[in-house]
Amino acid sequence: MFTLNAVEGGVCAARGFYADGIAIGLKKENAKDLAFIYSDTVCQNASVFTTNKMTAAPIRHFRQKGDFQGNFVLINAKNANAMTGNAGIADIDEVLGALIEKFPQIQHPVMSSTGVIGVRLPKAKIIEGAMTFDLTHREGVAASEAIMTTDTFAKRIAFEVILKDGRSFRMGAMAKGAGMINPAMATMLCFITTDALVESATMQILLDECIHTTFNAASVDGDTSTNDTVLMMANGHSGVFHHEAFKTALETIMLFLAKEMVRDGEGATKLVTYHVSGAVSHHEAEVCAKALSNSLLVKTALFGQDPNWGRIASTVGASGIVCDEATLSIWFDEVCVYVQGELLFDERLEPFAAAVMQKSAFTIHCDIGQGEGEFTAYGCDLGHEYVKINADYRT
Amino acid sequence: MFTLNAVEGGVCAARGFYADGIAIGLKKENAKDLAFIYSDTVCQNASVFTTNKMTAAPIRHFRQKGDFQGNFVLINAKNANAMTGNAGIADIDEVLGALIEKFPQIQHPVMSSTGVIGVRLPKAKIIEGAMTFDLTHREGVAASEAIMTTDTFAKRIAFEVILKDGRSFRMGAMAKGAGMINPAMATMLCFITTDALVESATMQILLDECIHTTFNAASVDGDTSTNDTVLMMANGHSGVFHHEAFKTALETIMLFLAKEMVRDGEGATKLVTYHVSGAVSHHEAEVCAKALSNSLLVKTALFGQDPNWGRIASTVGASGIVCDEATLSIWFDEVCVYVQGELLFDERLEPFAAAVMQKSAFTIHCDIGQGEGEFTAYGCDLGHEYVKINADYRT
Repeated sequence: MFTLNAVEGGVCAARGFYADGIAIGLKKENAKDLAFIYSDTVCQNASVFTTNKMTAAPIRHFRQKGDFQGNFVLINAKNANAMTGNAGIADIDEVLGALIEKFPQIQHPVMSSTGVIGVRLPKAKIIEGAMTFDLTHREGVAASEAIMTTDTFAKRIAFEVILKDGRSFRMGAMAKGAGMINPAMATMLCFITTDALVESATMQILLDECIHTTFNAASVDGDTSTNDTVLMMANGHSGVFHHEAFKTALETIMLFLAKEMVRDGEGATKLVTYHVSGAVSHHEAEVCAKALSNSLLVKTALFGQDPNWGRIASTVGASGIVCDEATLSIWFDEVCVYVQGELLFDERLEPFAAAVMQKSAFTIHCDIGQGEGEFTAYGCDLGHEYVKINADYRT
Repeated sequence: MFTLNAVEGGVCAARGFYADGIAIGLKKENAKDLAFIYSDTVCQNASVFTTNKMTAAPIRHFRQKGDFQGNFVLINAKNANAMTGNAGIADIDEVLGALIEKFPQIQHPVMSSTGVIGVRLPKAKIIEGAMTFDLTHREGVAASEAIMTTDTFAKRIAFEVILKDGRSFRMGAMAKGAGMINPAMATMLCFITTDALVESATMQILLDECIHTTFNAASVDGDTSTNDTVLMMANGHSGVFHHEAFKTALETIMLFLAKEMVRDGEGATKLVTYHVSGAVSHHEAEVCAKALSNSLLVKTALFGQDPNWGRIASTVGASGIVCDEATLSIWFDEVCVYVQGELLFDERLEPFAAAVMQKSAFTIHCDIGQGEGEFTAYGCDLGHEYVKINADYRT
C-alpha cells in the first residue's frame, strides 16, 4: 500500500526544510551548540511537552503563542532556560526579535533549550551566533550534532514515503536523548519535519497516539525534565497526505529515536525491551513494564549481566498490579526461567539465561497470567558510567 | 511525664526476652546467619509486612496463622524463601515443627527470612543449627549480627521507659536494612520486643501510626522487597502500660532504626533528610519528599556533593504535586539557594551550599508555598559502591 524508503538529511530530508548547527562557544572545544530548522513557507505544527510543572521558559513561551503558524525553530544546548521566571521568557523574545530583524523571512519563530537549570540564557552570545546563520543551508547532520549533550552519537532518521500511486512525501527527524548537561535533568528533544499536506489538528492527534508507545515507553532514569519537547512541523510542499502511511512513518521514526535514546542512555551498555502480557488491562501492563524498566535493582542486575529473575518477579509484585506467583512466567529472550510457580532456574539453565544477558539488546518477557493486557517498554542498564556522569561536579 | 533511658541488650533488654545468633554455614567465613527471639511467656503481637504482591513464604505462613499468641521467632539470612510456592510454606512448617519437638516451651513459632529469591530453604541446615539453640541466652548483639546481609553495621537500640510514678517498662529492637543478598531485593526486617502490658490490637494501632513517618519515610532505592517485615512482641512482664510513653518509645526506636538503615544503604555516604513544607496537603508533601529521596539524579548529585538545586526544583515539578516556580523556595540546611522565583545561586553562594553537601548528614528543605502540607522523608546518595554491590554476579 505504501513503502518507507530511508533517505539522508534528517530534518532537511523533507522539501522546503533547511537546518544547520554551528558552534558559538556554549560547549567546550568549539563543539556545535546552536541549531535552527527553517521552512521556506509557514508550517502546520503539533507538539508534546514535558509534564514537569517546573516547565522551562521555552515551553511556556511556545504555549503563550497559542495557535500559530511559524517556520523557524532555534535550539541551543548547555542552558535550559528553566526556573528563570518571566525574565527567561523575555530573554527568548529578545533573541527571537533579533532574528526576525535580521531575517525577515522568519515568521513566528520558537525556541527550544537544553542544559543547566536556573541560569539566565547567554543571550548576547546566542544572538551574535544566530546572526551568522545561513538559511539556505541544508545541514541536517550538523543540526543533529548541535543539539547533543552527553549523547555519544547524533540521532536522526528520514524516510521518503511512497504511496501505491507513485506520489510521495517525506518525513525526517532529529533527537537528543537522555544525555544530560549537569545539572539539568535528562532532557529529551525531538524535532520532526515533513512536507506532507496535513493540518495541525490531524497531526496533533497522530502525534498524541504515537507518543504513548514510543517516547513515553522509553526510560533511562525515570526522571522527567523541565524541557522535554517533541515538535513537529509540516509545510505541505509535497501536496500529498495518506493517513495510514503518515502514521506509520511517524510511529517508525519516533520508535526508532526512542530506542536510540535508551541505547545511548548515560553509561548504558544494553537496550532492554520489557514485554509484559497477560495483565488484567493494558494500563496495568504499562505500569508493570515501566516499573521494570525503572527499577534500580533490575537495572544494576542487567549491568552485572546477572540473570537475576528474582528481582524481575519481585519488581512485578512491587508494581502494585494484580499478580500472583502461581500465574507468573518469565523469559529472557527465548529462555524461560520461571513458569507459573515452577522453579525452573538451576545450574543447567543458568548458562543459557546468562548468555542472553550478555547481549547488547534483548527482551525480558513477563506473562502475568491474569488477563489480556499488554505493553512494551524500553529501558537500559545502570552502571558506573551513569554515576560518574551524574555525580561529576558541574565545573 | 516520662523519660527514655538508653539501655543495652537490643531485643533482650525487655524482661523475659531471650535471643541469640549463631553461624550455621549459610553465610561465608563462619558469620552468624541464624537468630531467634524467645519470650518465656506467650506474647501479644503486631506486625507490618511488605506491600509486594509476590509475598514471601514466611509472611504468607504468618498470615495463615491468623490471630495467635506465640513466643518465638526464627530468623535466617541468605535465603528469602520467596517465589517458592506452597513448598516454601511446607518447608517452614517442617523447620518450626522440629523446633517445637526439641523445645516444648516454644508456642506458635513464626519465621522470617531474607536473602536470595526463588531458591528452596536449606531446611536441613537450618534444623540442624536450630537444634543447638540455647533458649536461656540473652545475646541481643549476636542476634542483631546474624540478621545482617550487606549491612555494614548491626542495628539495635533499647530503652527503659520510666514513668513519673517510678514504674517502668522496656522496649528494644533490632533491624537489618537495605543491604541485600544478591539477588534478593533490599529486604528490611525489624523486630521489636517489649515487656509493657499491652494488647495486640492497641499495639497494632500504634505500630501502624508510627510506621508512616519512620520506616515508610525511608528509602534507599525505591524498591519494595518480597520479605519486608516489622514484627513486635509484648509479653507484659513489667505490668506497666502508658499510652504516650509507649508511643514515644516506639516512634523513637523506629525512627532511629529507619535512619540507621538509610545511613547504611548500599554504598551510601550521606543521610539526607528531605523536609517538604507548604504543599497543598500532607499527602502531596509526602509524594514530593519521597520523589526527592528516590530521584536518581538527586541521589547522584548528592554523591557528587554538587549543590545542584536545579535537580531538586525539577524533581519537585516532576512529582506531580501542585507547585509553581514562583512560590518554591529551597534550602540546603540553612543555606537558601532559591526563593520564590529568585535566582539567588551564584559564585558567592555556591561555597556555602557546597560545604553543606560535604557533610555526612544534612537537610534539604523545600517550601512549596501553596498550603500547609508537610512531610519529612529520609534518603541517601547513590554512588559507585551501590552499582558494584548490586551488579556483582551472584557467585
